This record gives sequence, structure tokens and C-alpha cells, in this order.
Amino acid sequence: MIYCDIEGADSLWPSMSNRISDELGTRVMEDIKSEDSLSSHRHGDTLPYIHKVGAPPKQNLFYEIKDAVKETFFSDNPLGHFKDQTRSRKFVLGFQSLFPIFEWGKEYNLSKFKGDLISGLTIASLCIPQDIAYAKLANLPPQYGLYTSFVAPLVYAFMGSSRDIAIGPVAVVSLLLGSMLSDEIDPNSSHDYLRLAFTATFFAGITQLALGFLRLGFLIDFLSHAAIVGFMAGAAITIALQQLKGLLGITHFTKNTDIISVMRSVFHSAHHGWNWQTILIGVSFLTFLLIAKQIGKKKKYFWVAAIAPMTSVILSTFFVYITRADKNGVSIVRHIKKGVNPSSASEIFFSGKYLSSGIKIGVISGMIALTEAVAIGRTFASMKDYQLDGNREMVALGTMNVVGSLTSCYVATGSFSRSAVNYMAGCNTAVANIVMSIVVLLTLELITPLFKYTPNAVLASIIIAAVVGLIDIDAAILLWKIDKFDFVACIGAFFGVIFKSVEIGLLIAVAISFAKILLQVTRPRTAVLGKLPGTIVYRNILQYPKATQVPGILIVRVDSAVYFSNSNYVKERILRWLTDEDAARTENNLSRTQYLIVEMSPVTDIDTSGIHAFEELFKSLQKREVQLILANPGPIVMVKFQASNLTNLIGEDKIFLSVADAVATFGSKVEEP
Amino acid sequence: MIYCDIEGADSLWPSMSNRISDELGTRVMEDIKSEDSLSSHRHGDTLPYIHKVGAPPKQNLFYEIKDAVKETFFSDNPLGHFKDQTRSRKFVLGFQSLFPIFEWGKEYNLSKFKGDLISGLTIASLCIPQDIAYAKLANLPPQYGLYTSFVAPLVYAFMGSSRDIAIGPVAVVSLLLGSMLSDEIDPNSSHDYLRLAFTATFFAGITQLALGFLRLGFLIDFLSHAAIVGFMAGAAITIALQQLKGLLGITHFTKNTDIISVMRSVFHSAHHGWNWQTILIGVSFLTFLLIAKQIGKKKKYFWVAAIAPMTSVILSTFFVYITRADKNGVSIVRHIKKGVNPSSASEIFFSGKYLSSGIKIGVISGMIALTEAVAIGRTFASMKDYQLDGNREMVALGTMNVVGSLTSCYVATGSFSRSAVNYMAGCNTAVANIVMSIVVLLTLELITPLFKYTPNAVLASIIIAAVVGLIDIDAAILLWKIDKFDFVACIGAFFGVIFKSVEIGLLIAVAISFAKILLQVTRPRTAVLGKLPGTIVYRNILQYPKATQVPGILIVRVDSAVYFSNSNYVKERILRWLTDEDAARTENNLSRTQYLIVEMSPVTDIDTSGIHAFEELFKSLQKREVQLILANPGPIVMVKFQASNLTNLIGEDKIFLSVADAVATFGSKVEEP
Repeated sequence: MIYCDIEGADSLWPSMSNRISDELGTRVMEDIKSEDSLSSHRHGDTLPYIHKVGAPPKQNLFYEIKDAVKETFFSDNPLGHFKDQTRSRKFVLGFQSLFPIFEWGKEYNLSKFKGDLISGLTIASLCIPQDIAYAKLANLPPQYGLYTSFVAPLVYAFMGSSRDIAIGPVAVVSLLLGSMLSDEIDPNSSHDYLRLAFTATFFAGITQLALGFLRLGFLIDFLSHAAIVGFMAGAAITIALQQLKGLLGITHFTKNTDIISVMRSVFHSAHHGWNWQTILIGVSFLTFLLIAKQIGKKKKYFWVAAIAPMTSVILSTFFVYITRADKNGVSIVRHIKKGVNPSSASEIFFSGKYLSSGIKIGVISGMIALTEAVAIGRTFASMKDYQLDGNREMVALGTMNVVGSLTSCYVATGSFSRSAVNYMAGCNTAVANIVMSIVVLLTLELITPLFKYTPNAVLASIIIAAVVGLIDIDAAILLWKIDKFDFVACIGAFFGVIFKSVEIGLLIAVAISFAKILLQVTRPRTAVLGKLPGTIVYRNILQYPKATQVPGILIVRVDSAVYFSNSNYVKERILRWLTDEDAARTENNLSRTQYLIVEMSPVTDIDTSGIHAFEELFKSLQKREVQLILANPGPIVMVKFQASNLTNLIGEDKIFLSVADAVATFGSKVEEP
Repeated sequence: MIYCDIEGADSLWPSMSNRISDELGTRVMEDIKSEDSLSSHRHGDTLPYIHKVGAPPKQNLFYEIKDAVKETFFSDNPLGHFKDQTRSRKFVLGFQSLFPIFEWGKEYNLSKFKGDLISGLTIASLCIPQDIAYAKLANLPPQYGLYTSFVAPLVYAFMGSSRDIAIGPVAVVSLLLGSMLSDEIDPNSSHDYLRLAFTATFFAGITQLALGFLRLGFLIDFLSHAAIVGFMAGAAITIALQQLKGLLGITHFTKNTDIISVMRSVFHSAHHGWNWQTILIGVSFLTFLLIAKQIGKKKKYFWVAAIAPMTSVILSTFFVYITRADKNGVSIVRHIKKGVNPSSASEIFFSGKYLSSGIKIGVISGMIALTEAVAIGRTFASMKDYQLDGNREMVALGTMNVVGSLTSCYVATGSFSRSAVNYMAGCNTAVANIVMSIVVLLTLELITPLFKYTPNAVLASIIIAAVVGLIDIDAAILLWKIDKFDFVACIGAFFGVIFKSVEIGLLIAVAISFAKILLQVTRPRTAVLGKLPGTIVYRNILQYPKATQVPGILIVRVDSAVYFSNSNYVKERILRWLTDEDAARTENNLSRTQYLIVEMSPVTDIDTSGIHAFEELFKSLQKREVQLILANPGPIVMVKFQASNLTNLIGEDKIFLSVADAVATFGSKVEEP
């Protein structure tokens, strides 16, 4: 009974497929109700659909390398639309690809502007209080948050290609920056702190630009989704805990961010007495904001959540102003500098002892900012189905931060919460960011003095309400359900952030992500196959208890490409299957294994170490008087087997179209015990 | 015309396979000449061999984790033979597994000893001159090489499980150690240099022990074979160049190891005049050694190569002694301390400023030593077909170096060349190492004064002759033929070593190896499939130009597990195939793509990011009014699809047994343009 495994046909070279069909008289399996002409071949000798396979066309080395480079760095074919264009057209296209606003701007119209105006105003009302609060997270004076929300969105609007992202300072990056900067310089003691912040922002921008230009954007994919979920949740809790200072009106507060130091700080301060007015303001507005957030989850009422922070600020400021609660110990903002961003070009450290720490902080915060912005961009791009060029986005974000660092901004990126509001408010293009930017400009020029009496407690509530959304318990549960290793990565990053620091959490997240990749390539799966009764199908005997092994033959499937990182494991795992199986067979008085069939369908690629491993496997088996048979090696594998002369070593007559063919050939040759 | 792809059957759940067979009336393909009872089902309604697949048996979480840990760290099942044994027996087995000599020692006999004696004497005669020479490479006095060849092989003989490895100092590790140590301390100025060498040796041993005990031995697999080939060749050339000092009798020689500094040093010294007597000795013995090596390649004459170095030493020493050539500027060894190893336990830095550099140098040299020893162990184990437990080997090597560091040895490991001689001389067990060790002991106690007149030039010749074997041009050519990327790794490591330093070369080797792994998991292959005319086989249209696309349907195969590192790429690549294809089809007035079939046979695993990617792919396609169809997802993928509810989102009726089934179902539904 000989079948031909059709699915396996592509892996065979003409000589071999002919050989197999000649030798075995393999016939094509056909559906007896077949509707097309195939049925006429049923009794024929020709094999109508074993096509000549042939080695894949031999590629010129130059093209081979070109293809590899293209697929690695230009997989999105960024220059595709430059093809077959005149030179002047190419220049226009190039200009437009750097400044997409000149592309979509041509089709801009009043009805689009209506949507952008409304959403721009909405995110402005949301961002102004958040800006002030986030600047405090980064240990910067409040106006720097507003500065960042003025320049950065303007630059992005001209260069970015996401239509929905809302640009500005965000909580996690502010915390990360604040924590790393104050490890270097005490924020209260020196103007150098501010200068280092600009330096870090500058290098964050340079990092993003470099990744974009060098088309290394894929590097951010190495921070796995699971790790980000844990990192974000940990950062959210850390940020929320930091706000206890403002919310409870504590004066002496720890500088550490880990949960133990913070809780100790909170309890120690308890017997100094907390300020009840502060707590009253903080807790009541926090309740208000959280309820508003809950209501805003319905798409219809999204504006409730959007205007709640601004409403809180206005109400609480008014309340403090009329009650003069600040005289009773309620801490207030006190002073926001009026006027537009001053230049900060001369403030950046381009030399001196802070340069290297500026670069380090810049690279880390730039990468994190990038991760957040790209994740947001991708989410909304896939919701509205437009393509986003990750590398071009990075160039836009990088330019934005470089320009920002010269104009008193700190690291800006896309904000999850504000982008969602932007989307729900019906934004159409990046003009929403321009509208927001103009509103922030007006705020800076006109109404900053009005924030004087804004209580810090309400800013703390705004931050807490905003970061609650970063804790995604559903996602964590899904991770647990789908992939336990992902869950471990998530929890590791989470605990790292809350018990140590943001940087340690980040390090754990990256380390676990890498460990997962390494594990994946080091320990591929293997399975022993058995025959499903009454069929010629060979399946994993653990998954199919009914599958039975063939006497004298052991069939092992390797479920991965074989590279240097796993070649030894694969070889030794196969030999261990053989040893274990032989021990069991001897015990049960069955014939010992005389043929080892390696099912190679899932082996999509192999490198020189893999070839060595197969060579050694062959030799080890020879010593044990076991014949090595290969079933269905793929095209790339066959090319390399031939290049390394391994096909001759193993013998072409030991390489089969399918497991079934191999068993059919050797099953009858097995010697009885 | 409907076929059932049998090979794909394992990926399906009962509901689905039943559904498919019900809906499509799928019938089993049968060989019309079938010899068994299957043919009786040909017209029947039963499906004798579409077995109920069922989700793979749901595993208890504990077992799932246990299995993963076991497969990662205990893949060699090291405790297998402890099973079902009494406690005292377990103790004996445990003791034997730590000291294998008590296992194989029981069966040791005189005939085995004969082989071991001969090979032990042979490698002793080879190692004594090498030891003296290699100690100089590490900038240590000559006796330390001999010390290392006395203690280390003894310890290994008791604990190691390789029967063929010859233990002692080796060229590459000596060079690496010498180069890293002298970056910290000037070797000539201070006793601290020696102390740091012992410290590094101690921590090299600790590193090896730790890797073995923690079962992290697989980490050394990450240094790819290709990188090692390049690194070794580079190190060999660097070592050979260093010997120009001794060979040409140059007095002022550079401390750098890169080729440019060395060549400059050589040419600068030329006009001071080289010492012709030194050159005469060096060149003539080098010629002799290389010829002997060439002759020794024939297995019958291996002893020619084995005794040549000792012969050279004796002849040259005698020659210098009678001619008193040392008075004419021929540099000689002058002094080797007589007597057995002194204790060095109190010399190791356990604190102070050199501790951290000692640890760093120890970890690096320990890893390199390990790589070399494990590679040798594996090679010979597969030649004689015995299993080697990599982790246990590491424990043995680690203990050996820790003990060595306490007894004035520096880092020892297995030597490629001496192990090969050992094997060819017919060694049977590690007793050969004991024999060698005893000979070295006698040398230390009795004849070291005789080496006084040994010219350094002959030691240089011995080193050059030994390291020439590390340059494996054939391996490099094979790398080029099989895998271009491997070749780049090889060349990168090679140039790194010869143009910069051993450490830089090593760093390049590791970096390229990692880059390859990252590339592999970041940019998996995808292919568009077409139908081979007259068949139901779907194959890569680039490989099979005859394959034709189905109107209105695009079939894409993903050739890798989908993880966070490639999920976005896979998603965007599939969408790009769709965009490109649609553009081409519109141009040719063909119907636009209405169904996208993703062939998932090679997707062996998926994680949460992969699930997200498929979710987003589904949503993007929905926006474009394209239906997503999956063909043949594997069992693990299906479990995760179900856990994440993705099967419901995509629709169970969109998941098919094979591409052919899917095309059969939707091919007729395609709307004409």
C-alpha cells in the first residue's frame, strides 16, 4: 500500500521524485468523485501532478544579499511609489514623504476641519491640566508641560503620518525621566537639572531619528506586548502612589519610587497629621474624575471624561480662591510662568560630565516614548485601516523631540488616553494637534496666572485618574490564559517596577523578552509519530493515543528550523528518543529500532551547525546500526544538504517524499527480533 | 473536485473536521491499487481515517511548567537512571555521576591500560614543550604551564566523562588570558599579575561550575560554530605573529596583539638587525615541525607529529649547550623552577581593586575554555558513540580550575591537537591523562634544569606549528557555500581578532551570532502560493513559475512560529502582499482579491502578540472587504486561538483542513470584476 503525500511534493528534486515514483510505483491519490480531467489518469502510468520541482532557481549572490537586506530593513517597500517617476516628481514625493501634511493637505476641506476643531478643543481641555501635573512628575516647573504641548504637536502635525495620535507629555515617560534625572542631579538644588532634562530630550530625539533613518524600527518590537502590559501597570501604580503626597498633603516624602519606601513614607507622615482640607479636595475630585471616566466609556458620553479634568481644575481653583484654603495648608501651584517657550538651545550639555548621562537617559526614554507612540499609531491605523510607516513615524517623532529640546520642551510622545479621546471626538487629521497646540499657546499667553490657586491635590487626582487606565487587568488575564511565559514576563516587569524602580522593571521586561526569544530558538519541539490505524497518516503519539508505532522503525518530527543555537539539542534529543524507545522495545521483546525516520516538513531552514548536527547524527546512528531516513526536507534545506554533500553521505535513496513512502519502503525490511 | 489533505489532518478539531467533511463531502484519497481494506470504503459515507482529533489533552498547569523546565534544563534526562532505585543505590549512583572514574574504573583492565599508557606518554611528550611555550603566551613563568598540566588532568580524570580529551593549557585561552591580564597589570612589574591570573582562574572555574550546576550549559551553544571558526583562525594568526618576536630574536616588541602593530614592530626592529643564529634555529625547527605535522596526518605515522616537538626541544637545547649560542644573542629559557606546584590559595584576590577585573577575566576565559572543551568532548564522543553530559562536564572542568587556582595553575581546558593525538594513540579512558600528569610531575621534580638552554626560538616554532591547525580554511569555504550569513560571522570574528584584539573579535563573534538569532525570529519567510496546473497542490509561485493564482483569492504561507518579535512584520507583510497583488490584478482587469487564505502549516507556535496580530489582520481585512481564511493551523495554535476567542471572531467555518479545501469552498463564490 503506497501513497504519495501530495503536500510534501515541493521538497523534492526531479531526480528524486522520479526515482521514488519509478521505484515504488507511487500513484497519485485521487478523489473518486473528482470533477476534472484528473480522473482519466487514474489507471495511467503518468504522474500528472508530480511537477518537476528542481532546485529553487540559483540566485546570484548580489541579488541574494540584496533580497535579504531589503526584507530586513525595507520590508515595507518605502520607495515603492518612487519607481518609474520623473526626477522632479521624485523630489515632490520625497518632500511629501518627509512632510505628509503637503500630501493630505491638498484634499483638506471644511467638513474635515469641523471634526478636527472639535477634537482639538477636546484634547486641549484634557491636556492642559495633565501637562501641568505631568511636569511635576518629571520634577519640572509646571509651564514646561505646557511648552511641550505647544511645540511638539505642531512639529508632529507637519511630519507625522498618524491621523489620530495626540502628542504631548505622558505620565510614564515623565516618571521615567524624573526618576532617572534625579538619580543624577537633585531637582531642587540646581539649574543643571533642567539643562540635563533638555539634554536627555535632545538625545531621545536623536535616538528616534537614528532608528528611523537606519530603518532599525523593528528593534522596538523586541519589547514584547506582555512585558509592556506589566511595565505599564507597574508604572501606573508607582505614579499613583507618588500622588499620595499631593493627595494627602504630605510634606516630607521619600524620593524613592518603590512601593515599600512610599508606603513607609505615608505611614510615617500619618502621625504628623495629614491636611484634611487637602484630602477632602483630593478625594472628592478623584471620585468625580473616576465616575466621569466610567461614564465616558460609553462612546456617546466620551466628552464627560474629556472635560472632567478641566472642570475639576476650574472648580477647585475657584473653591480655594474663595476659601483661601491655601492659608490652611492646602498646597497650591502658586506660580506658572506666563508666555511662550523660551529658547533652550544653549542649555543643552554638549560636553562636560553630564553629557554621557544625558545620552543614556535620552536613549532609554526615547525608546520607551517610541514604543508608546508606535503602539498607539498602529492601533488607530488598524482601526481606520491606513498604513503607517514605522520608520517614517520615528523620523517625525525624533525631529519633534530635537526641535522640542531646543525650545524648552521635554520628551513628548503619543498619549494613550488623549489619543482615544481624539479618535472618539471625531478627529480626521493631524490638524487636531494644531488646534490643541494653538489653545495651549493661548493658555500660555493669557491665562496661566489663573492657575495660581489650583490645589496640587486636584492635579494628583487628575494623574491618578489618568494612569488607572494603564492598568489592563483583562490583558493580563488573557496572557495567563494564552501563554504562561508571556504572563511571567508581564508579572516580572510589574514587580520590578513597583518593588524596585522603573528602570529595573524595564530591564526585567527586556531581559525576559530576550530570554523568551532565546528559549524559542534553543529548545524547539520534537515529537515521536505513530500511524493512525487504518490510515497512512503519522501523528504525534502523545496527542493521538491511538496512533501505533511501526515495528523496527522510529519516526521523529523536528518542529523548527535547525540553527547553531539548537542543532546540538535537536541531535541529542533525537538520539535520546531512540535510546528511550529502544529500551522500551527491548523490554517488551519487540524488534529493536533499525530505521530512524526524521520528518522534516517543519524544518524551514538550516545553517552550517545544523548540517554538522545531521552529519553527527548520521555517524552516531551508523555506530548503532540504525539507518537514517529523511522525510520531506524543504527546498532550502535540500539546497544546503546538496551544497554540503550531505545528500551523498546519507544517500539519495534515504530521502523520501513523505513518512508514508519511507515506511512503505523499509517497513518490510525490518528484521524480526 | 475536493480532496482532503491527509497530512493536514492533525491540526483539526473534531467539530471542524466533521464540519468540513459534512459540508464538502470530503473523501479520503485512496490509492486505487490499495492493498488493504480501505478500498472497500471508497464509495462509503464513513470516513475511516479522519480520526477524532480533539484538543491535545489539557494539561495541568503544574505539569505544563514542569515539562517546560524539564525540556529546557534537563533535556538530557540526567536523573533518568536514579529512578526506581533504593536510597543507598541512589547515593552510589550520585557519587558515581560526580566521579565517573568509580563507574568505569570497575571495568578497567590491563589491556585498556596498555592503550592509555602509550597515549599518555605520547601526549606528555607533546604537552611538556607546549606547556612551557603557552605559559609564555600568558606572560607567566614557564613552570606554571607545567603546574597546570599536572594538577588539572588529575582532577579531570576523576570527574570528567570524556575518554579522549587531553587536558592542560591551550594556546587560545593562554593568549586571551595574557592579553586581558596585561591590560590590567604590567606582567613584568609586579607579583600582582600572577595573583590576578590565579584570581581569574578561580572565577573561570566558578563560572564553569555555576553553568553546570544551574544547567545553563546550553548558553555556550550561542557562540555559533561559524563564529568559532573565524575566532580560532584569527587567534591562531595573532599567536603566530606574536611568535615572530622569539623566532626573529627581536628584543623590543609591541604589547598590542593586532596585526598592524605587530608588523610595524617587526619592520622597525629590522634595522636594529635580527639575530641570525636565532632565525636559523627557529626556521629550521619550524620547517621540521611542519613537515612532521604533515607526515603525522596519516594515521599510521601520527607519532611522528607527536614526538617532533620534544625532539626539537632536545636537539635545539643540546645544540645551544654545545655551541653556547646564548652568548651570541640567542635567547634561552634560562630558568624553570624545580619542584611540584606550590599552594596559591592565599594569592587569590577575594577583595580589593583587582577582584572585579579578576571576575570579568575569569568569566570570559572560563566561557571560552568551556566552548573549546565541550566542542572537543562532543566531537570524540560522537566518533566513539558515547553520550556526554555537557552540564556534568562543566562541573568537572569547573572543579578542575578551582582546584587549579589553589595550586598555582592557570586556566586549563581540553586541547584540540593533543586530544586528537590522544585518540589516535589509542587511549581508552581518562587514565591517559593520569599517565601524562605523572610524567609532568616527574619532569617538574627531576629534569626542569635541563630546559635551561632551550632556545625561545624553538618554543616559538612549536607554538606556530601547533596553532596552524586552528586555521580551518576548508570550514570557511564550506560556510561560504552553505550559508552566507555564517560566513560573515566567521569573517567578522576573524578580522576583529587580527585587526583589533582577541576580546573585540570575541565580542564581534557573539554579537553576530545574536544578530543572526534575532534576524531569524524577526523576519520569517512568507510566500504567495499558486496552484500547480492539473493538481490541487499549492506552491510558492516564485519557486514554481508554472503555478497559477486563483482568481479573487490570494494564498499566503507564513513560514515560522509567530511571536512578539515578528508578529507585526508578519501582519504587515501579509497586508503588503495583498496590496501589491491587488494593484497588479486591477491593472490586468482581474477580479480583486476577495478571499485571503493564510496557509499556517509551518506556524508551530504563537504567543499573545501573534494572536493580536491575527486579530488586527482580521480587522484590517474586514475594512477592505476581504475575508480571512486559515488553512491547517497546528494544534498549539488552535488551542491558543480558542483560548483567546479568535476562532469565534474569524469564524470556525473560515478554518480549513487545507488550502485545497478552502479554495474548493470559496473559489466558486468569487465575484467577477
